[in-house]
Amino acid sequence: MTSIIDATPTQPSTAANPARALVCRGCGAEYPLVAQHACYECFGPLEVGYDQAALARVTRADIEAGPQNLWRYAALLPAGQDPASRVTLDPGLTPLVAAPGLAAELGIRAPLWVKDDSANPTHSFKDRVVSVALTAARGLGFTRFACASTGNLANSVAAHAARAGVPSIVFIPGDLEQGKVVTTAVYGGDLVAIDGSYDDVNRLCSELVETDEFEDTAFVNVNVRPYYAEGSKTLGYEVAEQLGWRIPEQVVIPMASGELLTKIDKAFSELVEIGLVEAPANGWRVFGAQSAGCNPIAAALHAGTDVITPVRPTGIAKSLNIGDPAAGLYALEAVRRTGGWMEYADDDEIRDAIQLLARTTGVFAETAGGVTVAVLRKLVASGKLDPEAETVVYNTGEGLKTIDAVAGQVGPTYRVKPSLRAVRDVGLLG
Amino acid sequence: MTSIIDATPTQPSTAANPARALVCRGCGAEYPLVAQHACYECFGPLEVGYDQAALARVTRADIEAGPQNLWRYAALLPAGQDPASRVTLDPGLTPLVAAPGLAAELGIRAPLWVKDDSANPTHSFKDRVVSVALTAARGLGFTRFACASTGNLANSVAAHAARAGVPSIVFIPGDLEQGKVVTTAVYGGDLVAIDGSYDDVNRLCSELVETDEFEDTAFVNVNVRPYYAEGSKTLGYEVAEQLGWRIPEQVVIPMASGELLTKIDKAFSELVEIGLVEAPANGWRVFGAQSAGCNPIAAALHAGTDVITPVRPTGIAKSLNIGDPAAGLYALEAVRRTGGWMEYADDDEIRDAIQLLARTTGVFAETAGGVTVAVLRKLVASGKLDPEAETVVYNTGEGLKTIDAVAGQVGPTYRVKPSLRAVRDVGLLG
Repeated sequence: MTSIIDATPTQPSTAANPARALVCRGCGAEYPLVAQHACYECFGPLEVGYDQAALARVTRADIEAGPQNLWRYAALLPAGQDPASRVTLDPGLTPLVAAPGLAAELGIRAPLWVKDDSANPTHSFKDRVVSVALTAARGLGFTRFACASTGNLANSVAAHAARAGVPSIVFIPGDLEQGKVVTTAVYGGDLVAIDGSYDDVNRLCSELVETDEFEDTAFVNVNVRPYYAEGSKTLGYEVAEQLGWRIPEQVVIPMASGELLTKIDKAFSELVEIGLVEAPANGWRVFGAQSAGCNPIAAALHAGTDVITPVRPTGIAKSLNIGDPAAGLYALEAVRRTGGWMEYADDDEIRDAIQLLARTTGVFAETAGGVTVAVLRKLVASGKLDPEAETVVYNTGEGLKTIDAVAGQVGPTYRVKPSLRAVRDVGLLG
Repeated sequence: MTSIIDATPTQPSTAANPARALVCRGCGAEYPLVAQHACYECFGPLEVGYDQAALARVTRADIEAGPQNLWRYAALLPAGQDPASRVTLDPGLTPLVAAPGLAAELGIRAPLWVKDDSANPTHSFKDRVVSVALTAARGLGFTRFACASTGNLANSVAAHAARAGVPSIVFIPGDLEQGKVVTTAVYGGDLVAIDGSYDDVNRLCSELVETDEFEDTAFVNVNVRPYYAEGSKTLGYEVAEQLGWRIPEQVVIPMASGELLTKIDKAFSELVEIGLVEAPANGWRVFGAQSAGCNPIAAALHAGTDVITPVRPTGIAKSLNIGDPAAGLYALEAVRRTGGWMEYADDDEIRDAIQLLARTTGVFAETAGGVTVAVLRKLVASGKLDPEAETVVYNTGEGLKTIDAVAGQVGPTYRVKPSLRAVRDVGLLG
């Protein structure tokens, strides 16, 4: 009899790491599996390439016999096949919540689901990418963990490092929500607030990673970024498995760098290629969501161009505020290829959508989730999204982290003295 | 092949409700399974009595074949055997986190675990009791859900009602942390702030429940309290199952009403009685934790009396601030019977313990979790808790809900301009 906490299922046929090389997304040049994120030939971004034969040996039964977290997909990831190697809070297998009430309000007449990744250990999808990145990083010999972050990533790196007993150093923009600052600082690692935007912080980290003082340091979204990005694939695998090994016809995904969207699409493609699922009859369509204060990818789609013009982000959806999105081009490609679309929502629409989601599903999302639900609403209204097709909308973070966004909108409906008379006076008794 | 979200395993031998009657904890009088919480004979509290033969038919295999949430224990609960009957966010099966770093800092030389119930859908253990209470309530014909709450319960009732599409009305003290107010209000039910303490709110609800206007309303912790309380048993069942069907030698549990402690102890006793686990060779010992600002149960234990003197609560551990604890006597009984102890911690000790837990385990607890870890530390220091015996400490809530408690303690370790020179100037580069 197996204990639930025993995360060591036997997966004899899939115990090897299926990753084969780092492959340039631009020119196709290949590199060994080291800590490198850009191509020496064309400066294009690298991503993990797999041994397709190894992937093709993975079965549904292998996965279903695995632990109740993202490591059930270890045979499809570039790290963590050996449970003892994992640097992890064991995120994943978050709820796929049926949302009939939300569907009814929006006029969607097919099944609508919310993939609620606020249920991860530090309450955002970042726990997925961090678990994969830090597991790869420890395997590569790094002894300190770091990141540039808009908040959720900082929480996750600091918590992972605390659990693993490894030093961490986290770089954040100086204007983050207090919730995200405290929730990083409490784990006790170094926390460096930078007087600048996320893009400034990211540039600084790209410089630091080249210094001698940081040669022992894995920056999860810089020098080990190819491994990091692969963690997002699990948000595709899980939805397919939770639907009974089916791919939904439509998915709506928030975009910051654009990478999450491309990796969910990649996950669906992989599942089809290796024969674990069949594609829907008309394929799947990928929709991207941004805020009006930071919409460079959606703006490029609307303008019909591949030129993504960087912006200086504004607005309440801070976890999506990447003004110069590294994977924007690839997100455009995925959306165009699948016949999807992109939209953006302003702050008032985001706040309304947070409340709409909460009162119809019991899921309290952070501003990024508000963006996605607001965009879902717009896509239905404009006819870009088919209300007769099964749809999954991704909530990537927890409302408690961005309480200020709705604190002015909601509160007690009554305030009374503790007596029956007072309760009667406000009309709660006949 | 079964979908993960299909929470309908076949449990043919255990599909019947094992609850038999409501039984007075004072005089033993029995009542049918209705909405009643006090004995008509002696005014003692009622609790659910079971058909022991039905419980004894439950096997480990039945449970292990169940869903990955608390409903795997439905055959040991007074509601929810039929999945379609459940009013639920599917809480439970939260992580049991190994805490070797915390053990080392405290001088504990046996396995130490943190049962992290902040991982529940609304991030506290209250999702457990609310799921059971509201499922029972709907079965009893109630059409509106209500509670008196210090915050976590309010969040949970409002979210459950939103998911189920049922109206809710939640009564809270007027001075709650903003996080808990917003996180209730956002779900869209009625929210009534009462100018008074939790005990005032609770008294008011006891009056309201008797009015005609509220006869359709289940107050989860008043008229359906016996069902509600049983949900806490799952925190005992899960720990035993997650340890590979073993009961730990020592458990440290926060106390508000004292009910959680008594129900975890009851769960262990049931598991032994029905033959699912063996008791540890020397039994298990139950330890209770309160804050210095609200310590009526611990004070009674220290004074060697059964007289629990109500207090007016103060201090930052608001989710534990019940000055007149309904189950205090039974908590005293369990602690004395098992050879445990109770301790209390002041606000500074609570803040320190929140940080200690976070930096050694990656678990960010609300103030109640700080209370429990601070008390664990005191129990080790005083020799009341055996550092050579396996111990589980319960974290019942999420740090994001009580950020203010540590916001003054932690923050960025550095604040710099976005340049290598600035980073060098603060000493991060050699």
